[in-house]
Amino acid sequence: MTESPAVLFANEAFYQAFAEGDAEAMDGLWAETVEVSCVHPGWNSLIGREAVMESWRAILSHPEAPAVMAFNARVQLFLPVSPMALVTCNEVIGENLLAASNLFVQERGVWRLFHHHSGPSAESPEIEEAEPGEGTMH
Amino acid sequence: MTESPAVLFANEAFYQAFAEGDAEAMDGLWAETVEVSCVHPGWNSLIGREAVMESWRAILSHPEAPAVMAFNARVQLFLPVSPMALVTCNEVIGENLLAASNLFVQERGVWRLFHHHSGPSAESPEIEEAEPGEGTMH
Repeated sequence: MTESPAVLFANEAFYQAFAEGDAEAMDGLWAETVEVSCVHPGWNSLIGREAVMESWRAILSHPEAPAVMAFNARVQLFLPVSPMALVTCNEVIGENLLAASNLFVQERGVWRLFHHHSGPSAESPEIEEAEPGEGTMH
Repeated sequence: MTESPAVLFANEAFYQAFAEGDAEAMDGLWAETVEVSCVHPGWNSLIGREAVMESWRAILSHPEAPAVMAFNARVQLFLPVSPMALVTCNEVIGENLLAASNLFVQERGVWRLFHHHSGPSAESPEIEEAEPGEGTMH
């Protein structure tokens, strides 16, 4: 049986903790057996559990925290090569559309986040066939 | 012996192909045994070798391609749990500072990219101790 639904469940749990401002749940969703890291939109990379969790506590306790939604999730599962998986999805944070990459590792049967990278996305996620040249130059 | 230098070498080869506009070298740097994906700054996620390589051919052939530099690379190696590694680094593309996450998989002893996510970074990478609340709200 594929592990994809379990990975999607972990991804949804992440966004639920994020949306609900639940710092304790957020902490429990991140990996303990590998080093974790995180790139919030517009931030530089944060590496290590302490730095990453400090950032989430600051974000989740913000008094004007915007509404958070995630959609368009797609799983890339790397079993049996690797007990890891990547979820790409879109986020809507307040009025901003973003694209996110969420990396998970399977720890004792449970999928936990070890890397999150989110940045602004100018394109509508429905437009799958957009010309590459129309995006921001990279 | 650690594989970190080999991963850093693969990361540097990626930025060299990018800086030199070498689409053929770029193609050879991406994984063949797992599904690849890419999030260019401001774009939505691209999934699959065809979509990712099409985007790179468009970017690398752009007549006004800006200068590309990468620095501040840091490797997270997941061996022996997983033959995968994550490099976080900063990019300077033209006049823009970005933060990137580059994921590699070891294929027959060679580290190849399977995911690249780059987005704008407002912070100076030297400021490691910046208050989390000073970044863009996420």
